[in-house]
Amino acid sequence: MNNSLDKIREIIGKFDCDGVIINNNSDIRYLSGLKSSNISILVTSDKAFVLSDGRYKYMIERQELFTPVCITKGMCESLIELITEQKLTKVMIDPSDISHKNYKNIAEQINLYDYENILSELRIIKRDEEISNIIEAQRIADRAFTDILDEISIGMTTKEIAALLDYKMAVYGSEEPAFSTITVNEEESADCHGVPSEKKIKSGDLILFDFGATYNGYRSDITRTIAVESICNEKKDIYDLVLKAHTEAVMKVKPGVLCSDIDEAARKCFRERNLEEYFIHSLGHGVGLDIHEAPVLSKKSETVLKKGMIITIEPGLYFKDKYGIRIEDTYLVTENGCKSLTNIQKNLIII
Amino acid sequence: MNNSLDKIREIIGKFDCDGVIINNNSDIRYLSGLKSSNISILVTSDKAFVLSDGRYKYMIERQELFTPVCITKGMCESLIELITEQKLTKVMIDPSDISHKNYKNIAEQINLYDYENILSELRIIKRDEEISNIIEAQRIADRAFTDILDEISIGMTTKEIAALLDYKMAVYGSEEPAFSTITVNEEESADCHGVPSEKKIKSGDLILFDFGATYNGYRSDITRTIAVESICNEKKDIYDLVLKAHTEAVMKVKPGVLCSDIDEAARKCFRERNLEEYFIHSLGHGVGLDIHEAPVLSKKSETVLKKGMIITIEPGLYFKDKYGIRIEDTYLVTENGCKSLTNIQKNLIII
Repeated sequence: MNNSLDKIREIIGKFDCDGVIINNNSDIRYLSGLKSSNISILVTSDKAFVLSDGRYKYMIERQELFTPVCITKGMCESLIELITEQKLTKVMIDPSDISHKNYKNIAEQINLYDYENILSELRIIKRDEEISNIIEAQRIADRAFTDILDEISIGMTTKEIAALLDYKMAVYGSEEPAFSTITVNEEESADCHGVPSEKKIKSGDLILFDFGATYNGYRSDITRTIAVESICNEKKDIYDLVLKAHTEAVMKVKPGVLCSDIDEAARKCFRERNLEEYFIHSLGHGVGLDIHEAPVLSKKSETVLKKGMIITIEPGLYFKDKYGIRIEDTYLVTENGCKSLTNIQKNLIII
Repeated sequence: MNNSLDKIREIIGKFDCDGVIINNNSDIRYLSGLKSSNISILVTSDKAFVLSDGRYKYMIERQELFTPVCITKGMCESLIELITEQKLTKVMIDPSDISHKNYKNIAEQINLYDYENILSELRIIKRDEEISNIIEAQRIADRAFTDILDEISIGMTTKEIAALLDYKMAVYGSEEPAFSTITVNEEESADCHGVPSEKKIKSGDLILFDFGATYNGYRSDITRTIAVESICNEKKDIYDLVLKAHTEAVMKVKPGVLCSDIDEAARKCFRERNLEEYFIHSLGHGVGLDIHEAPVLSKKSETVLKKGMIITIEPGLYFKDKYGIRIEDTYLVTENGCKSLTNIQKNLIII
């Protein structure tokens, strides 16, 4: 982590800044391990402070990397005071990580310099420890999913399934669901971000699971679409097509490849069947402390894959008021290709 | 909800605006019932649009109050396009609900007018339907808590207790925990926002529970500190003092009273015992679609209580590396006083 502070100081020095305000919660966790609903970091050329309020007083006092500042006023006011006290002349800030109101307040008294994604270059390539955390988060999710396959029965609601999955993940060590767990059936799954409800599972249904666990702040992400007792030919055909798109995309993943080319590999499979319009989102995204982080795997993404990136591949097709099918794994980009971090089969599971 | 749009149009008209961008997720849920990770609303003098991306396409098409706009570009770009197309000349926006980067992008092409908390005046007084939702969210939390009191045993970890509590709330109909459930014992509870861990429960421990459920988007909030098998005199004395502070504060709650006076009523009890410095946060806050919303009950709060507000009262004392005790109920401000929405006893529970 000290290494990260050195890199940050290198960047701020390059732009003649003598300090940087870091407001992004995941950046703060990346640097300090701390998690709080009201927290900010100020790094100067020779010091590093963490600011939070009384509720987190003892927590920030316990860590040793940053000088703790327990604030008794608003965060903006406290930052202005600290910056003035430290006699900083030009302070870097990410304009995406601060509200316009707060930015304006600080900018009235401090010379700010806008610079986006200060930590992105660091965070996009995962360190060994980060990879281990994501693997563990995925292991927890896989284990919970495997468990509940035996416990789902006809008549259960999709909400009950979500509750059970979240519970199992928590018991197996997940800090919190990586995002709101999606367990939806039939027409609900046509909304690719559908919400579990009181709808009951019946024979012949498809159930779409999109979920993940969190371990030491790091997230996992997996989607499986399973069939209850049987599957009709139409759905099986679509399932196979989505799986094909997934496989084609994965085969392209290796260092040096454009993210948009990975998206295109999947998209092409749908286009060939005149179904591209039902693929209503991008192919995937980076995963780490945030469930969605760099890189984006979309039609337009110009990022080039590098070893150590962790990305999802998640093609899907969605038929309004009918059903949706998505298959998602998380992959670590390796020297020559990639490695799935998931141990759940991608061939259709029928329970 | 149409009523809310009328009120919004009244406000924008007063400031010569012909439109307003609403970016706050809870405001959006308040107006439309919709929940999405990428959503914005534009209200003009005679139209109302909801913008989201492909992932939420079918969802926004299903509601009828707003014209759905499925965006294929970034949200800023799409808002600029729509505002230009609608020929709006001055658009209101809350500078707290947009990043500086996005604000700047829009302001380069659109004449923006800053106005904070556009919906706050509406949201601070709860409608009957909102009160019912919060009561239901509290009922779910109470029921889950009552259940797990029987299931906690010596040797369980605080993480296991949190997992069980979250599971029970989900089974009883909670959409999601109202916030990250806090179940912590002994020195962990000295951090008023401590995090459940692998620490095991033992005889003589205090366990602090701070948690809530979510029902139709509305949150509940309760804190109880319980003792395992027995409690020593020192802790019991502090418990009684916190309960006294709670009771004194509640007795002050009625329409017309300053929020800071409620805070002072509790604070005074601690001051009289020379313990004010261990009360390291404010007394309470409003609850609704957000777990923390207006009004704030702090030393400095100048808000005057009104009938229909829903607030928490949550005094606490925290002794670093030792233990913390907090007792919190959620109250509806009524015509002559207030009514607790919680059915769990505040006298010490020993399990």
